[in-house]
Amino acid sequence: VSAPGSDPEALLEAARFGERVALARVLSIVERGGEPSRAVARLAYRAPVPYSVGLTGAPGSGKSTLTDRLIGAAQEGWPRRGAPGPEAVAQIGVLAVDPSSPFTGGAILGDRVRMQDHATDPRVFIRSMATRGHLGGLTLAVPDAVRVLGAAGLALVLIETVGVGQMEVDVASAADTTIVVVTPGWGDSIQAAKAGLLEVADLFVVNKADRPGVREAVRDLNQMLDLAPPGEWRPPVVETVATTGQGVEGLWTQIAAHRALLVDKGLLEVRRAARLERELRRVLRVRLDEEVTRLGEGHRFEAQLARVVAGEIDPYEAADALLVAELGGRAGTAE
Amino acid sequence: VSAPGSDPEALLEAARFGERVALARVLSIVERGGEPSRAVARLAYRAPVPYSVGLTGAPGSGKSTLTDRLIGAAQEGWPRRGAPGPEAVAQIGVLAVDPSSPFTGGAILGDRVRMQDHATDPRVFIRSMATRGHLGGLTLAVPDAVRVLGAAGLALVLIETVGVGQMEVDVASAADTTIVVVTPGWGDSIQAAKAGLLEVADLFVVNKADRPGVREAVRDLNQMLDLAPPGEWRPPVVETVATTGQGVEGLWTQIAAHRALLVDKGLLEVRRAARLERELRRVLRVRLDEEVTRLGEGHRFEAQLARVVAGEIDPYEAADALLVAELGGRAGTAE
Repeated sequence: VSAPGSDPEALLEAARFGERVALARVLSIVERGGEPSRAVARLAYRAPVPYSVGLTGAPGSGKSTLTDRLIGAAQEGWPRRGAPGPEAVAQIGVLAVDPSSPFTGGAILGDRVRMQDHATDPRVFIRSMATRGHLGGLTLAVPDAVRVLGAAGLALVLIETVGVGQMEVDVASAADTTIVVVTPGWGDSIQAAKAGLLEVADLFVVNKADRPGVREAVRDLNQMLDLAPPGEWRPPVVETVATTGQGVEGLWTQIAAHRALLVDKGLLEVRRAARLERELRRVLRVRLDEEVTRLGEGHRFEAQLARVVAGEIDPYEAADALLVAELGGRAGTAE
Repeated sequence: VSAPGSDPEALLEAARFGERVALARVLSIVERGGEPSRAVARLAYRAPVPYSVGLTGAPGSGKSTLTDRLIGAAQEGWPRRGAPGPEAVAQIGVLAVDPSSPFTGGAILGDRVRMQDHATDPRVFIRSMATRGHLGGLTLAVPDAVRVLGAAGLALVLIETVGVGQMEVDVASAADTTIVVVTPGWGDSIQAAKAGLLEVADLFVVNKADRPGVREAVRDLNQMLDLAPPGEWRPPVVETVATTGQGVEGLWTQIAAHRALLVDKGLLEVRRAARLERELRRVLRVRLDEEVTRLGEGHRFEAQLARVVAGEIDPYEAADALLVAELGGRAGTAE
């Protein structure tokens, strides 16, 4: 493979022509963050946005197997019989995200093995992402990675989160369609409500629906949904058995229906604009965190600290002086 | 009581002359944070610094009863027989800090009841502090409160933390002498090491030393201390039974010895300078957090967001534009 240096533009161009090594390298740049990743963002954010589907849920709920099945469904272009839905997708991106792990760990390796149906399929690009500990971390890197996949010509990206924390929910819910996966054994829907999942879910999947308790799980979820104010879309509750494929066609139909609603009502633009606003606020926070680091390093910091230690000024006055001296303008003035 | 308005200077002056209501009002200003608390800081950081003793440890380790006993010891000016140590202290401040509770809760009320020996003693000023949820919260408010007590003329402040999280350890370890309280039932010293307590402790107390397992607890702690590099001061391990007062005189002697070492070797200044550096960094962070909030509100933010939504620029470019426009100077330039 003739991977073209580390120039983002050349790498993205190569990725567009199917060079997977080039695409992997651009994603590594995004994952590492910093100035090189910003150069990538400058290009990627001008490209078409891929349709993104997020999957979140407790470990063991079968998200990876379900993702595997959805790849197949997307490739076959379900539903087939005239119902509204996306065309068959030429190439599908899969981001397996694990915010809790500093490096690619066992869970993701396990997922990769489970996804082996598609691991060597040139029409599927699977990438695991773990935080490298830089400021802002995955909550910035994942949306950037989705944009990169779009710039490389992929039309559909599945974002699967491995854990169950707030960051996992944040990552998975920053998609066009968000799927929350539960199992009959997961207990009642109160847990989903507690975790804030009712608010982010566009679709619920009760996976492992061949196990006892599936009716209760579906009923509980529907009862919780009955309490929510009615809107344009009531999240359907879909039963699947990912290991056999049962119910996956129905799930894909619902994904397609949700996408059609977003497109037809103009809600896709609204949703993406709201997402960009959250992204911009996150970037601002990271940039100002960098300023804190920088302000705490220079000789001006040492000079102000010396005055605080000498009892001449208090830390608040010192901070204001640093903000005015280093940032200028309106910063650091008393409100 | 003739509490003088809400002018920080007048309130502090009244507090210096023993008006407890005025002192309580200044501390409330500090607790609420914001610009009024900065006016207080401007005055308080120019006043003499009180000697501060922090107590941290798991709930149920008897910290409150021990604090109660230390108040008595400080008032009587232990040790009596010519050993080095502080003079009898005219007025003692006690800050009971609970970062985990948004409001003054049951635990602190319970502590106050346990401290009832001194609750009506005019020589003791007891204040419970809980976070009010403002940025920076208690990690800024507690050092400010210590300075306020100094400005009101108090020479000694005991800082007792109620919980066991990292913030509690941060608060208690930001004292001139830090005491870590364990009990025989607390398990082996590995727990203390795990919690980072070995690094911050100037003294260890094994309280409830009338219970089984006290020898093992003392031995475990000493074995852990044997592994640390030798320095100017090896944290002593003191056995106490706070409920009867047993060992408290010995503990006070050790506190006095630690203070004498810090003063004689010039280490007190070094320690306080390092503490002020951490405080200044925290203040900088809070000030920049305020900038994020402000940057995310104005019409400039809306204009940049509109450009991102239109696909003209990416969120990083928008953030840089906002930083340059709002803060000016060097901020927002590419490194």
